[in-house]
Amino acid sequence: MKILKVYILVLVGIVSIISCEFTQAQQATWIWYPGDYDIWLGNQVQNRRTERGTFLPPFWKMDSHFVLVEFSKKLDLAAEETIHIEVEGQYNVKLDGKLLFGSPQHVTIPAGKHSLNIKVHNQAGIPAIYIDGKTIQSDNSWQVTFEDKEWIDESGKASDTSSGTVYLNAASWNFNSPDTPPSRFKLATQPMFAVSSEKRNNGTLYDFGKETFGYVQFNGLKGSGTLNIYYGESPEEALSVDYCETLDRIPVDHPSAQDFNVSGSKAFRYVYVEKETSLTYDSLSMLYEYLPLEYKGSFRCNDDQLNKIWEVGAYTLHLTTREFFMDGIKRDRWMWSGDAYQSYLMNYYLFFDSPSVTRTTFALRGKDPVTSHINTIMDYTFYWFMGVYDYYQYTGDKQLIEQLYPRMKSLMEYCLSHRNKNGMMQGLAGDWVFIDWADFDMSKAGEVSFEQLLFCRSLETMGLCANLMNDAENAKIYNQLAYDLKSKLFTAFWSDKENAFIHNRENGVKSSQVTPFTNMFAVLFDYLDQDKTRAVKENMLLNPNALKITTPYMRFYELEALCALGEQKHVLDELRNYWGGMINLGATSFWEKYNPQEKNPELLAMYGRPFGKSLCHAWGASPIYLLGKYYLGVKPTSPGYQTYLVEPCLGDLLWMEGDVPTPNGKIHLYCSTKEIRVNSDEGTGTLKFKSQTKPVCKTATIKQIAVKQYELTLEKGQEAVVKYKNIE
Amino acid sequence: MKILKVYILVLVGIVSIISCEFTQAQQATWIWYPGDYDIWLGNQVQNRRTERGTFLPPFWKMDSHFVLVEFSKKLDLAAEETIHIEVEGQYNVKLDGKLLFGSPQHVTIPAGKHSLNIKVHNQAGIPAIYIDGKTIQSDNSWQVTFEDKEWIDESGKASDTSSGTVYLNAASWNFNSPDTPPSRFKLATQPMFAVSSEKRNNGTLYDFGKETFGYVQFNGLKGSGTLNIYYGESPEEALSVDYCETLDRIPVDHPSAQDFNVSGSKAFRYVYVEKETSLTYDSLSMLYEYLPLEYKGSFRCNDDQLNKIWEVGAYTLHLTTREFFMDGIKRDRWMWSGDAYQSYLMNYYLFFDSPSVTRTTFALRGKDPVTSHINTIMDYTFYWFMGVYDYYQYTGDKQLIEQLYPRMKSLMEYCLSHRNKNGMMQGLAGDWVFIDWADFDMSKAGEVSFEQLLFCRSLETMGLCANLMNDAENAKIYNQLAYDLKSKLFTAFWSDKENAFIHNRENGVKSSQVTPFTNMFAVLFDYLDQDKTRAVKENMLLNPNALKITTPYMRFYELEALCALGEQKHVLDELRNYWGGMINLGATSFWEKYNPQEKNPELLAMYGRPFGKSLCHAWGASPIYLLGKYYLGVKPTSPGYQTYLVEPCLGDLLWMEGDVPTPNGKIHLYCSTKEIRVNSDEGTGTLKFKSQTKPVCKTATIKQIAVKQYELTLEKGQEAVVKYKNIE
Repeated sequence: MKILKVYILVLVGIVSIISCEFTQAQQATWIWYPGDYDIWLGNQVQNRRTERGTFLPPFWKMDSHFVLVEFSKKLDLAAEETIHIEVEGQYNVKLDGKLLFGSPQHVTIPAGKHSLNIKVHNQAGIPAIYIDGKTIQSDNSWQVTFEDKEWIDESGKASDTSSGTVYLNAASWNFNSPDTPPSRFKLATQPMFAVSSEKRNNGTLYDFGKETFGYVQFNGLKGSGTLNIYYGESPEEALSVDYCETLDRIPVDHPSAQDFNVSGSKAFRYVYVEKETSLTYDSLSMLYEYLPLEYKGSFRCNDDQLNKIWEVGAYTLHLTTREFFMDGIKRDRWMWSGDAYQSYLMNYYLFFDSPSVTRTTFALRGKDPVTSHINTIMDYTFYWFMGVYDYYQYTGDKQLIEQLYPRMKSLMEYCLSHRNKNGMMQGLAGDWVFIDWADFDMSKAGEVSFEQLLFCRSLETMGLCANLMNDAENAKIYNQLAYDLKSKLFTAFWSDKENAFIHNRENGVKSSQVTPFTNMFAVLFDYLDQDKTRAVKENMLLNPNALKITTPYMRFYELEALCALGEQKHVLDELRNYWGGMINLGATSFWEKYNPQEKNPELLAMYGRPFGKSLCHAWGASPIYLLGKYYLGVKPTSPGYQTYLVEPCLGDLLWMEGDVPTPNGKIHLYCSTKEIRVNSDEGTGTLKFKSQTKPVCKTATIKQIAVKQYELTLEKGQEAVVKYKNIE
Repeated sequence: MKILKVYILVLVGIVSIISCEFTQAQQATWIWYPGDYDIWLGNQVQNRRTERGTFLPPFWKMDSHFVLVEFSKKLDLAAEETIHIEVEGQYNVKLDGKLLFGSPQHVTIPAGKHSLNIKVHNQAGIPAIYIDGKTIQSDNSWQVTFEDKEWIDESGKASDTSSGTVYLNAASWNFNSPDTPPSRFKLATQPMFAVSSEKRNNGTLYDFGKETFGYVQFNGLKGSGTLNIYYGESPEEALSVDYCETLDRIPVDHPSAQDFNVSGSKAFRYVYVEKETSLTYDSLSMLYEYLPLEYKGSFRCNDDQLNKIWEVGAYTLHLTTREFFMDGIKRDRWMWSGDAYQSYLMNYYLFFDSPSVTRTTFALRGKDPVTSHINTIMDYTFYWFMGVYDYYQYTGDKQLIEQLYPRMKSLMEYCLSHRNKNGMMQGLAGDWVFIDWADFDMSKAGEVSFEQLLFCRSLETMGLCANLMNDAENAKIYNQLAYDLKSKLFTAFWSDKENAFIHNRENGVKSSQVTPFTNMFAVLFDYLDQDKTRAVKENMLLNPNALKITTPYMRFYELEALCALGEQKHVLDELRNYWGGMINLGATSFWEKYNPQEKNPELLAMYGRPFGKSLCHAWGASPIYLLGKYYLGVKPTSPGYQTYLVEPCLGDLLWMEGDVPTPNGKIHLYCSTKEIRVNSDEGTGTLKFKSQTKPVCKTATIKQIAVKQYELTLEKGQEAVVKYKNIE
């Protein structure tokens, strides 16, 4: 009997642990209308840009949050419960249709079924709430609307809001405490110190040892006068008081010594300070400012240069992954959809930080009405669509698609209503057709094949998302539009003579120019048959006389296309040459542009300004994506890594090892020429590999699928160790 | 020679006076993107509503201003000039395409041609600028855009913004000093005192003698405890601590006596105060809060009851003309498009305050996308269109149409895309079909004839405005749509049996109900032929057994239709009976609803609440409109009173006298049974009148236009005095 009692106690203990965990799973968090916070924060961040001390805001429409939002939740309580209410804004609380007095911070709700509505007005910031009770917590299950349409008739009867009001699930980030409301969010900071300093010209040049971002601090600053601070990603820039891109001129009046923090955060490696002699300070340091993120992905191999490239890439992505995925940290610090699209893909192989993707996606999209392309750039509208579906594929987060789908439809409606008589898109007044900062002449006029290709892919994306939303009618429309456009792509732009897509068509006349863009993307999108694929590969991608891409931005896709075609060995050399080339020139983060072909490569100038080029640009970090996806060879084959593929490829490496993050864990891979080891935390994977010899695995059944080609199924939590012999 | 010199000096003096006046005409004023201030201020004002101490915001979508706006102006300076710059928000200044350092407050611009651009970011308030120089002033001639689309290419070349960027002329109000930025606007206040007070129940009841609005003040308030303040438009309401519509419960802790102002302004005539005995105060007063407006219109006649009705009407309109035209001052304090439409019309005969019309029009419209009808009410969308054209007709302000036209088009697009298969609009989920608070049953289902009628008028309005905007293509479309819908109106709703429009049609079946609304509006819109007009007049408008209208709201149109049909004598009796009836019951402002037919008329209750009814409602003030337009008989016949009609009608009066304001002056009229005197400040008028005898005018030629009907032309600044004999 005694033993039994203990046993019961143990059971009770287990139950209470479970229920405790369950309560924790129901974590209260600040919630808001989807997109509101992202748009609001995006406005703040993108309006922080300065150019030589002058405010330099974006040139596209900036939207605002909904200033009046209703939050609601249907409740079914086993017992009476008191909730704690925190709100950003002016608010009321309605329980079962009845307004409570004032703006209560605590409300006791009896057992039973209830409806709880909280309506919030906030002009300067976003309407947001935090509700915490024993079982009631604000989270993404709450419904939100910006127009509840609940009026009363002359008798006092409330209108029926069940059919005429559009609700969405609330959005949140990770503000999980009542005293961390979204308006107070700030990036983390930590003190950092210069590694050296020297007197130069009329001042002092400080070197922080590597590209960084933050607030300069003057310790023990005393006296009266002007502090002139010149920032540089290079020493040349910092020392160029007339041309450096960012600077501060700060009047100081400190009768006694005190520490002084410069208010705007800046990107720099070097800081050059000129001051009046009436001013003195003890030392200069900085507060490094960053988004705290876990490096979930990793890559190591036998080639130290590649390891360094991966590390610099990861650091570059971290520096540019801030409130949002930024382009570069020195100059714009804006979200650019084409740049962000690449950051998303890299992120899936490094941080797997989904909120950064959703924040950026919402902020880029803004709100209806659509009055121009995203960032005014036609191609950037298309990347936006593509990014949404990628997100779903990597994360499996269908709720985001639900929240975004109305804005996806209206953006596509904008595109469709701007087609020409051939059903194609061409740059209209105010449209920017970007493609790339190319070193060769390239027309942006008429029907540009690259734009139609991305447009087609965007329509396919809409078809996929419409199906996800059970919107069969629109799915059919989008898919048909994509099908038609794809056919036109080939009739309008494929040249049998060039064996490639030509660049554009103006007034019905095909140009003779062949550029790499359409061709390499067509490979990536798997739009080409075998013959055409081979032609593109040989005539364009591997042809040393083809037009050269000189931005990491388009090298991303060029090298990805080569990897997709099995040219990993070739691509490794490209990585060593191009990204290794930047490191050899002293890069501590990767650049906006680099052309190793030039005799005296222009390292610093761009946009007609001697230091216009960004030396820390997100699109420079693509090696972390390529190494994760095409060497470790990991990618999802169904949403959220429910199923996935591991197809390691050593190229010329002897061994490599790394992690690829998944929504709730990692896939770890070690691969040498003789052994493959894979371990994963979730999902069901397929390991595909080639072997000269018959491979051996003790824990799983290896299936031969072709000559020297094998595969086996990977189960979560179970390491697969395969002995094999790599095929060079 | 000496004389000549003096003459020259005099000339110089005249010239300098002229140039001085010219400079004054170029008054610098704060400017912003059209609609921004109205939307922003509208959010503030409409979110001030409380119901028994609880915040009660609107149930429709509230929009926001554009947070990033570019202001620009092309300059051609005879001489160098320094401008003073004041900005609400973070900003930069670009002169001739070049950014100036920082955010300068003073800029010196050399002689010659220049382009000046100022770009402003402001999230919490509106981006607004005030520029003042010798010849350069911020005013409505400046251009504004919310997306300048000015990007630079890799070489630093700026994009061409001339074709792809949409500019509008800036908007302003009357913020004509650098230290009165729009964000700091407040209504005026002045102290007022209770006319009596008495101990009642557990407190004191104060009577301010008439309906008023403002902030209660406790003078010499001392002690610690809670002040309970109950507001009432009636003594019953103020004394009903459990049911009064507005109240304040304020914790006080004043160790020593000090004056205390209650923070939220309220509508009331009576204030009932209950307090803890630990609290004492010397006296209670208030700060009356109002929009300072000139009473430009006036009306006096031999009937003192009518004079009183006009005065109470004018006071009612003034109380409800605040930051915007409000519905009522106690409860909603919101802009309701149907209510505001009437305020606009009354305003043209009282204040002629155009900014109040434009503020309300912009705020009601909000921004794209349109997601529901204005105020969610279908009819209210249509009144909005009608109000825009009326505004143009009365003021001649074409710039407003230019600023609004894009939003007019998109709102009409919303309507057109919500038509049913018959091309008609019917209430969909979330739509409110209001029409009136009628005391009889009335269906809102299916195709309601009244809604189609207003829809048709709105399409005609769009046709007129499209022509004004030289948008011939759309004008044609709108006019055709209006023409088609007008035909359908008669085939679908006119009943030969009833000799009237029937109320609605559901699933193709005509109802048998005849309500006054469609019929009387059809008269007003001049849609009916003589026979049909006579039928409506006799069977509906003058039929004592027809369904009775019991809101001043619809009585407005009912009586206007009767006036339009020459029934001024009858309408005078209606004014005396209905509005005089309210005054007889103690009204000091006119009510939301009043039914003199009821045995024990419900004076205070509405919406299922004992004091739900508003006793100061803008739509109650219609006599000021009717008396100005149909008795003084003044109305514009071309935009802005360039031409106008004066057609006085005494009804049963012996004499009347009054002013009707015009954009830049007044038309003054005196009319007795023997004499008419008219004097006007602008435009060319036509005086039309009937006379038993041949009329005489010494200063103008009288033309006989029919039997006993005469007219003459009125020239500005020249009084026309006509001797005649009135026809009863």
